[in-house]
Amino acid sequence: MVVFQKIDEIKSFVTGLKKMGRTLGFVPTMGYLHEGHLALVREAQRGCQAVIVSIFVNPTQFGPQDDFDRYPRDAERDLRMLEEEGVDAVFMPPVLEMYPQGYVTYVTLKGLTDSLCGRSRPGHFDGVATVVTKLFNIVRPDKAFFGQKDGQQVLVIRKMVDDLNMEPEIVTVPTVRQPDGLAMSSRNSYLKAEERKAAPVLYGGLTAAQAAFDGGERNPQRLCKIALDMLAREALARVDYVEIRSLPNLEPVAIITRPVLLAAAVYFSKTRLIDNIVLDPGNSL
Amino acid sequence: MVVFQKIDEIKSFVTGLKKMGRTLGFVPTMGYLHEGHLALVREAQRGCQAVIVSIFVNPTQFGPQDDFDRYPRDAERDLRMLEEEGVDAVFMPPVLEMYPQGYVTYVTLKGLTDSLCGRSRPGHFDGVATVVTKLFNIVRPDKAFFGQKDGQQVLVIRKMVDDLNMEPEIVTVPTVRQPDGLAMSSRNSYLKAEERKAAPVLYGGLTAAQAAFDGGERNPQRLCKIALDMLAREALARVDYVEIRSLPNLEPVAIITRPVLLAAAVYFSKTRLIDNIVLDPGNSL
Repeated sequence: MVVFQKIDEIKSFVTGLKKMGRTLGFVPTMGYLHEGHLALVREAQRGCQAVIVSIFVNPTQFGPQDDFDRYPRDAERDLRMLEEEGVDAVFMPPVLEMYPQGYVTYVTLKGLTDSLCGRSRPGHFDGVATVVTKLFNIVRPDKAFFGQKDGQQVLVIRKMVDDLNMEPEIVTVPTVRQPDGLAMSSRNSYLKAEERKAAPVLYGGLTAAQAAFDGGERNPQRLCKIALDMLAREALARVDYVEIRSLPNLEPVAIITRPVLLAAAVYFSKTRLIDNIVLDPGNSL
Repeated sequence: MVVFQKIDEIKSFVTGLKKMGRTLGFVPTMGYLHEGHLALVREAQRGCQAVIVSIFVNPTQFGPQDDFDRYPRDAERDLRMLEEEGVDAVFMPPVLEMYPQGYVTYVTLKGLTDSLCGRSRPGHFDGVATVVTKLFNIVRPDKAFFGQKDGQQVLVIRKMVDDLNMEPEIVTVPTVRQPDGLAMSSRNSYLKAEERKAAPVLYGGLTAAQAAFDGGERNPQRLCKIALDMLAREALARVDYVEIRSLPNLEPVAIITRPVLLAAAVYFSKTRLIDNIVLDPGNSL
């Protein structure tokens, strides 16, 4: 496994892979890896002949109130895990390598980014779109792999790739969960013991709504209410949002006749966790 | 010469060229071609093994008050000229092919775009950056060729390519002029006979400042004043701006010690013409 910190160096490495005709899978991460990331890596290995992982805590997707400074980092452990997975190369640029003095260019979406996490975190998805554009231009992958847990992020990136005629195919990989249902997240490391115990209520709320949906409920407000009621019973949970939105455009939905995204964000103290599921009415209509 | 209107089709064509290992030169235009465009094509042919020209009047770089609707178009003549030059392929997409229903993604620069033409035409350079990003992703050129006449545009595109780690090398080609000094521009076709006669005063003002500069004048305000004075003597000319800015960041300059851009925009009736020259103090400092 080769580790690159310089853009020029990984670009040369990629050029070499391309000359050998190898299909290239890319897994962009912010490090502090967990089983969710490894699921992306394994999916990339199944679909591609070479796999590159990036580790970069991207400052432009954090707001001034966000947790950029305290975001968990452990490069040594990350590299050990990726080596064990048989990853071909890791790209870990310093911040100034990605955003040198005088940096001014941003990719921005005038839709899809003003609801859900975009409303709670203004500018977040522009930061994501910008860094993913840069990483795609540097790594030039055939396929890029993203977790379903960051559902809105996947939709934003797909839309950007489509609008800007970018090359990579975007592959979504199902959310990996702890046995109690909590979605894997680097931010779970922030949780105190009692918060960690309470946190599965996030997925619990979503699955309660899923159960009502499976029982025939098609009204988004009533389904969200079921999730909200469950979350309200957990004193440590403070809801940011619980919403049902259309796919792939994240528009409000009056009544569910097609697959929709049920997404939620919940605070435990300062720790903001997100999760989502797709509610699919199947071919009933 | 092959003409493509569909993104997928030119992408396949480009993939074929790449497989043959041919270096690819790209000349993006808005059509209504003149000798300035042909100079770009010829420079591309000198530097590359295959040349693609795009013809696309890009709506996102026109403001609501701008001349998108009346911008001159003559596809038949353009194609004839490009065929004669021996261009390999032309990409002429319809607007909806480039910006389908629901398009939302833009590339934006938070610097370089608020002075000169960017001040007169808010949003213009975001439209340019967006369409050039799309075209680069579609055509994947090794080199792309732009005219010096659109000086700020070249600087914006270079900065964007640099910031977003895009592949193409940006090549600037000197401005082609009519015998009386007027820079070639598709918009010259708007000029009435008397305006066409008056229009060389734009370059005249710039060269008057150049003469003073060559005589040792290094004060930007005094140099601009010389150009402005000459423009003031032409009743048909209404100045938008005459400015001296640093290269490549277009910052204000107190005293000229390095190469600077002297740029101007002047209206003749509703027709807005631009021109620029570089004032280079050489190695004197």
